[in-house]
Amino acid sequence: MKEIQVGLIGLGTVGCGLVKVLEDNSEILKERLGVPLRLKRVVDIDLESPRPVSVPRKILSTQVEDILADEEIRIVVELIGGMEPAKTFLLEAMKRGKHVVTANKALLAVHGNELFAAAREHQVNIAFEAAVGGGIPLIRTLREGLVANRVGHIYGILNGTANYILTRMAREGTTFADALKEAQAQGIAEADPSLDVEGVDAAHKIAVLSSLAYCCEIDFNQIHTEGISQIDPSDIQFAKDFGYQIKLLAISRSDGDRIEVRVHPTMIPQEHMLAKVEGAYNAIHISGDAVGDVMLYGLGAGMMPTGSAVASDLVDLGRDLLVGSGVRIPPLACEGEALVPRQIKPMDELVTNYYFKFSAVDQPGVLSKISGILGNHDISIASVIQKGRQVKGSVPLVMMTHEARERDVRLALAEIGDLKVVTAPTRLIRVENREAVDED
Amino acid sequence: MKEIQVGLIGLGTVGCGLVKVLEDNSEILKERLGVPLRLKRVVDIDLESPRPVSVPRKILSTQVEDILADEEIRIVVELIGGMEPAKTFLLEAMKRGKHVVTANKALLAVHGNELFAAAREHQVNIAFEAAVGGGIPLIRTLREGLVANRVGHIYGILNGTANYILTRMAREGTTFADALKEAQAQGIAEADPSLDVEGVDAAHKIAVLSSLAYCCEIDFNQIHTEGISQIDPSDIQFAKDFGYQIKLLAISRSDGDRIEVRVHPTMIPQEHMLAKVEGAYNAIHISGDAVGDVMLYGLGAGMMPTGSAVASDLVDLGRDLLVGSGVRIPPLACEGEALVPRQIKPMDELVTNYYFKFSAVDQPGVLSKISGILGNHDISIASVIQKGRQVKGSVPLVMMTHEARERDVRLALAEIGDLKVVTAPTRLIRVENREAVDED
Repeated sequence: MKEIQVGLIGLGTVGCGLVKVLEDNSEILKERLGVPLRLKRVVDIDLESPRPVSVPRKILSTQVEDILADEEIRIVVELIGGMEPAKTFLLEAMKRGKHVVTANKALLAVHGNELFAAAREHQVNIAFEAAVGGGIPLIRTLREGLVANRVGHIYGILNGTANYILTRMAREGTTFADALKEAQAQGIAEADPSLDVEGVDAAHKIAVLSSLAYCCEIDFNQIHTEGISQIDPSDIQFAKDFGYQIKLLAISRSDGDRIEVRVHPTMIPQEHMLAKVEGAYNAIHISGDAVGDVMLYGLGAGMMPTGSAVASDLVDLGRDLLVGSGVRIPPLACEGEALVPRQIKPMDELVTNYYFKFSAVDQPGVLSKISGILGNHDISIASVIQKGRQVKGSVPLVMMTHEARERDVRLALAEIGDLKVVTAPTRLIRVENREAVDED
Repeated sequence: MKEIQVGLIGLGTVGCGLVKVLEDNSEILKERLGVPLRLKRVVDIDLESPRPVSVPRKILSTQVEDILADEEIRIVVELIGGMEPAKTFLLEAMKRGKHVVTANKALLAVHGNELFAAAREHQVNIAFEAAVGGGIPLIRTLREGLVANRVGHIYGILNGTANYILTRMAREGTTFADALKEAQAQGIAEADPSLDVEGVDAAHKIAVLSSLAYCCEIDFNQIHTEGISQIDPSDIQFAKDFGYQIKLLAISRSDGDRIEVRVHPTMIPQEHMLAKVEGAYNAIHISGDAVGDVMLYGLGAGMMPTGSAVASDLVDLGRDLLVGSGVRIPPLACEGEALVPRQIKPMDELVTNYYFKFSAVDQPGVLSKISGILGNHDISIASVIQKGRQVKGSVPLVMMTHEARERDVRLALAEIGDLKVVTAPTRLIRVENREAVDED
């Protein structure tokens, strides 16, 4: 094989990043792979919009069939995003014996099981390093580097937009709304930021990582997903007072036969490495039974980092093609893959620590009433802060709990919400306590 | 192939770690590889000492030939360390067509070129994930994950012992000697700690990483290597005053046709992620032209983390054997590997920022004399601190410079050392300034 021929579907931001990486580093890629990676055909429905890269007219097309029907093209890259027609294109490419690369986390999270099954059926590779964490080699780390480990937990800061907003809020005390506006002005948040700030994007990514870490199918709809739009500057300040930072964490944890998979704002100890991840950076913290704690850190999005990840997959598949190794590693990195879905533990059964911020009238007996209800539900208080100005007759009353069960918390908060002395909905933030994340 | 048969030479700490990982996680390894990894033969010169794992008597031997002559054994793991007989064993195993795995950074740093040439000649794989950074998948990251990048620089905290000592010194203000004693008591430093604290171990590791990052041969003897034994608590305090942390950094940087490769105590800005790496942890910060800044973090040593890395190499080579792919990635991850050594830039030509701590008598005109000499050598001062008690008539005078050339610095410090008002040798610590390491 004198070159590896590649077809690209989707010339958006990431597509342009891939084109640029392949162009800028063509020489180094050839040295490392042994033969050139050649972009033979680029397909997009819009060939007219201005783009940051120039692609020779003769390889451009609006017809996906120009890629699918070309037998010289051995690898098809899907970078259009969304469910359809991305899914159909990938399935069709695999059916025709082509290896595929995708950065489409939403599609993998929701329809991964079907795509992986197709890859197995047609004996082709499906590579997706770019789907999670931009250029950070997370997928490789789970499929190869930590392959000899039983994964205990994954904690991920997997959305740069949300982390940027929380960083601004923590540094400058601004509100969520103001930090979001700033992120939008910087081009870090999109006009409709909901997928990022409501945790859906992070949930897509943790679904993909969990299926790799635990070698199982994941039902995306069972993932509890909560965003950061309700966090206010006082929560961040109280967290600091208790020695914590608030991060939007995607958490995956093995719990016997079941796994926890959830995305929500989380307080983590200030001294934890994840607490130190600022701005638009991503980081993923993995614990393995042999390796201990490992963290990977970098830019989780952007044209060039994501292009770097797609290109690394092309080299990988190119190396397979050159030695004729076919499918060296199955999609979920498990031979005879466990097709039985692994059950996600219902949130009601979660046991963790909690931060509550109650708004209550400033009068005697309130603390006693609230703590009484908590006690009745087996929720034990670790510490209390009552400080700050009275706002319209209310004061914030803040508590950190010992480990409690989510179901009990839900019932207790409902009961407390009905008290006349309570003037606004209670804020709940889950806490990963020092023990759970201790590293030293 | 119904199983992958492995021979292990060396049942020391890492060897025992490998045995334990293969035992504890045999099921998960089988799931991920598809067939069992079977330790068929374990060779060590000492079969009597007590060990943390038990190996069936019948697979133990003192004769390496029992592994080398066994045609069923396809992969040989060398975990005895040191130069000889490790090198001979590896060369002989490759000559007989066996793939090899080693954790021997010293051997790779000094004789890597010969070993890699043997691997090419005999068309076998040489894997060495465990040689650098314990279980952190650094080698894979350079060979695969960041393969589409031109590496700009690597900054590594690659020695956990040195980082532990510096962390104690920074947290508690203790001296190097006391922190070393504590590390020894904790089992983190060896009885003879010189390889760790004098930077030699880190130099071995950065040699290996540099040859991968820049696809070239490295002459280990050209690597400037300086340890931390001369750092005293006042240096750490002054660093803090300027907004820096002192870390033992292994640095590799592309500079046109040449590369910088050096190991020395380095001041890095407190807000840099590497400054936040504490205790026995390792971290490596890599900049790639497409991916931007990436950092990997974890335990860089220890029985189980290193065992995890060796086992990941076994799975990798096992996957190759199962699909019959032979050598999928050449040793330095470059086809037609550039066998021309890449020149290491002489230290005299280095341009960086410096911290100087002068000991001078407390009298008028001293600052003027010292700064005059620096000026004569084109060294421009960025800031000065003169504080602290007078000790036997001397006071510390501390300066941070703008970028200067190492040769000029050497000449200036020699001249300053000859001044009568200067009472002790000047301490020099190189500084990676904010610009060089800025991430946001």
